[in-house]
Amino acid sequence: MKTIGIIGGMGPAATIDLYKKIVDYTPAEKDQDHIHIIIDSYPQIEDRTGYILHGGINPASRLVESAKRLEAAGADALIMPCNTAHYFAKDIERAVNIPLIHIVRCCADTIKNNYPETKKIGLIATTGTIKAGVYSSILKDYGFETIDLPENIENNIMDCIYKGVKAGKTEEYSRLFQQCVDEITNLGADLLIEGCTEIPLLIPYVKTKLPAIDATYELAKASVKYALTK
Amino acid sequence: MKTIGIIGGMGPAATIDLYKKIVDYTPAEKDQDHIHIIIDSYPQIEDRTGYILHGGINPASRLVESAKRLEAAGADALIMPCNTAHYFAKDIERAVNIPLIHIVRCCADTIKNNYPETKKIGLIATTGTIKAGVYSSILKDYGFETIDLPENIENNIMDCIYKGVKAGKTEEYSRLFQQCVDEITNLGADLLIEGCTEIPLLIPYVKTKLPAIDATYELAKASVKYALTK
Repeated sequence: MKTIGIIGGMGPAATIDLYKKIVDYTPAEKDQDHIHIIIDSYPQIEDRTGYILHGGINPASRLVESAKRLEAAGADALIMPCNTAHYFAKDIERAVNIPLIHIVRCCADTIKNNYPETKKIGLIATTGTIKAGVYSSILKDYGFETIDLPENIENNIMDCIYKGVKAGKTEEYSRLFQQCVDEITNLGADLLIEGCTEIPLLIPYVKTKLPAIDATYELAKASVKYALTK
Repeated sequence: MKTIGIIGGMGPAATIDLYKKIVDYTPAEKDQDHIHIIIDSYPQIEDRTGYILHGGINPASRLVESAKRLEAAGADALIMPCNTAHYFAKDIERAVNIPLIHIVRCCADTIKNNYPETKKIGLIATTGTIKAGVYSSILKDYGFETIDLPENIENNIMDCIYKGVKAGKTEEYSRLFQQCVDEITNLGADLLIEGCTEIPLLIPYVKTKLPAIDATYELAKASVKYALTK
């Protein structure tokens, strides 16, 4: 059984969500059947979206510091419950000798296998993730198109994430989030990707006919499979 | 701000519960306000109650291994979201140069400060925790008496924990749990301690006039205060 290292705390709620999904997905009848996970919940890592959009301190140094800490502690692979942080994936991969299980590739593989008819994807993510092309660059390689969202939808999504979930006001922002989902559906999306770790916390409050891929859940599944593969 | 190390995975659900309580208790408006936590979710640590009651492999070696891993990774203090594991507290304290914030002392301090009139305490915990004297030895130093529970109440509590909460049948066991709480009250308890991480899940189903101290919550509060003290 391999040990998974989580570069976490971006934010802590999203890390809890990933940890819980890993535990729930693991086939276990007793404590000892669960996988060994080391979580570095390090919220001091600078805001990723802030840096990508406006500059400032590059979060890459703290991300690398966390990755090295986990590698030294015995992690066999790294994962990050923060989509935007994957913009810095190459910095991390260069700094350590263990693989990073990439959240976008986990999603793309699931869409390819389970929803092969998909053409247009509605990506619900932070402006940082979108502007940095964290998803679109990889999804393109798989033959999927990411819909360009108008600025007002992007701004509303950012409010749902930052003023809603991150501020502990998830339910209060659920109506605005429903509006975002409806607008993305009207733009012709075949499928939604919940491409920000805060989004799955909003999903239970909304109604949609589209398949919605929870990136965190895909990452959890891939991590458990990796850990249990001999 | 100090870094908290969690010796976790005993079981993973209890670790998630503690992590969540720490995050919820932290005064934070953004990710960066949260504390740095390193969690070693290491479910391979052998069953503590099993060892105390029946012998077998001593879980102390893996507990110490986890404590050292967290110390090496930069933890300034350690905590354990498993009441029974505190039976091995001294083994851990001898092996590392950082303090262990002890779950029972957190409860005892709260009782001393908030319920100073308390004399007799009803401890709701596993037979392992009770038999090992994890609580009673420390509560005695604070001048509190732990009520000796008759075997039938202890067995019923074990059923509520193992056949109830751990088996996903919390509500089904709530009547039996109410009966346990009533019997402990009749034995003269002034206050209840929820000294097993499954018990807080049963508490919402019962009625009691007694104050009930959630040990996990007390540990979370003490950890946040420790981390934020300069």
